[in-house]
Amino acid sequence: MRIDGLQYCNFSEKIFRQIRIGNVDSVHVTVCYHENFRETVANLERWNRWFEQYPDLIMKGTTGDCARRAKETGRTAIFFGLQNCSPMEDDIGLVEILHTLGVRFMQLTYNNQSLLATGAYEAEDTGLTRMGKQVVREMNRVGLVVDMSHSAERSTLEAIEHSTRPIAITHANPKFWHPGLRNKSDEVLKALSQSSGMLGFSLYPHHLKGGSNCTLESFCEMIARTADMIGIDHIGIGSDLCQDQPDSVVEWMRVGRWSKEIDYGEGSKDIAGFPPQPDWFRDNRDLGNIETGLKATGMSDQDVSKVMGLNWLRFFDENFGPQ
Amino acid sequence: MRIDGLQYCNFSEKIFRQIRIGNVDSVHVTVCYHENFRETVANLERWNRWFEQYPDLIMKGTTGDCARRAKETGRTAIFFGLQNCSPMEDDIGLVEILHTLGVRFMQLTYNNQSLLATGAYEAEDTGLTRMGKQVVREMNRVGLVVDMSHSAERSTLEAIEHSTRPIAITHANPKFWHPGLRNKSDEVLKALSQSSGMLGFSLYPHHLKGGSNCTLESFCEMIARTADMIGIDHIGIGSDLCQDQPDSVVEWMRVGRWSKEIDYGEGSKDIAGFPPQPDWFRDNRDLGNIETGLKATGMSDQDVSKVMGLNWLRFFDENFGPQ
Repeated sequence: MRIDGLQYCNFSEKIFRQIRIGNVDSVHVTVCYHENFRETVANLERWNRWFEQYPDLIMKGTTGDCARRAKETGRTAIFFGLQNCSPMEDDIGLVEILHTLGVRFMQLTYNNQSLLATGAYEAEDTGLTRMGKQVVREMNRVGLVVDMSHSAERSTLEAIEHSTRPIAITHANPKFWHPGLRNKSDEVLKALSQSSGMLGFSLYPHHLKGGSNCTLESFCEMIARTADMIGIDHIGIGSDLCQDQPDSVVEWMRVGRWSKEIDYGEGSKDIAGFPPQPDWFRDNRDLGNIETGLKATGMSDQDVSKVMGLNWLRFFDENFGPQ
Repeated sequence: MRIDGLQYCNFSEKIFRQIRIGNVDSVHVTVCYHENFRETVANLERWNRWFEQYPDLIMKGTTGDCARRAKETGRTAIFFGLQNCSPMEDDIGLVEILHTLGVRFMQLTYNNQSLLATGAYEAEDTGLTRMGKQVVREMNRVGLVVDMSHSAERSTLEAIEHSTRPIAITHANPKFWHPGLRNKSDEVLKALSQSSGMLGFSLYPHHLKGGSNCTLESFCEMIARTADMIGIDHIGIGSDLCQDQPDSVVEWMRVGRWSKEIDYGEGSKDIAGFPPQPDWFRDNRDLGNIETGLKATGMSDQDVSKVMGLNWLRFFDENFGPQ
């Protein structure tokens, strides 16, 4: 079982075929950065068209069993997730509606302060707001997973504490390896795993030691070291692959509609666009390289299988339905 | 000139006639508590119908001169304001659009944490967010006044500091008189007046010493004491009159769509609805009682005129247009 815990590609038949070449059985795809409810529904409509057009390549995923059925039938199950809480607007009733529509992950915030919690780019972090606490409870009730990949430290710790179910950090790396702005502290990683939460290791160059020049060896050693620290059962891949996206999309991700100024996020004026991928992870076809790299660190076949997909599968089984 | 710096009545011909009986030349009316952009536009449409239906009683107000023209023609100018930033959603471009539509005040937050700042009901207060700082700058540019009536202490102080133009607290009272949750500290009142901002004294019973049993004398003494503390030029009336509203409306104000639980706000389970008004301020017809009450404290006629409307008029002149 091979599962990628986060991608935001400019999806197309070409990419769906690459996903199949890479034997990726399930992918959690982002269907919102800053969109409101109606705009997010339009993104779901586009996925519905793709499911209709490419039934031999992809299918909609809503439970762990969907991932299994996809594998058995040689297809890839697509799970929906939100990188922001903007689609629920100010309406707690939309949590259940979004779940009914198939959404399985929701970040409480994307870099900035939201109605629910604080993002990693704010100078101050209040933790969960009044509304945030109520929304986490509602997400727990229906089975919409809290994702804190882009959230600030205190908010992340409070989400772990306040949530009665495990949460996910679908795409980030440990700060001990690379001090990226939104990579995660040891304290967060330990609290996450102790609550049966999941960390998906990111392959987005700004999260990698050495950026685009990061080596496969360094990446896999980091995974092995994280496993030593927090256990083998709470880690997976969340590649954050943004394949074939024009640079206008990274601008949308960073600035949305909230600013009249440009904000380079984890980039800079000189490297404003999407950074190039490491040569050992160009796209979905290369996911097998990580499997090979993990084995080269001395990790057992069983443990490699957990990292490559079985941990995510267990997490899907346990967290995508009502409590 | 008699100006009320905030009302949220269930407006009707009856109330428009009472406003005229009370010789109220201008009223700042709330057109949003939790509404998004489109819903707020629908509220403006309702006002357009009223302007069309009652041209002898009311007119739309957008500048200080509108207030003067209304007075000269025996009508009342209605100025629009938002008690929440929800109508601008996550879109800084909507600041100018809302101003073009006639909106002249916007609260950065209504009790809870917003995308811009922290409300008075949150346990923690981060001050202005990244987006908040940019939005205040944009509001300064177009002439949309920052209103911090429902905001938390630090956020209010930061709004005053960050704004290059005076801000308003359209409806609240000093904490030194009544320690209501969102009444304002001496520090806030001083910073407000030193930056030429305006405080509108509220007649909403939860903001009054003694609640519905507050006396006119106590209210007017409080105004005189505030004038001694921060000067006579930065205070006015912001009655927060919510006449003829069903209790379902106070529930909407408090809970919006953000909670599945009931929240009693400044009320309690036993007094969940709108509290009764003091008998000396039932509605717009009684605004003259405050004028009489202020004179009884020994305040000069000129100073009373400032409090009753001239201060707001000057503020309108200076702050409703581009910088």
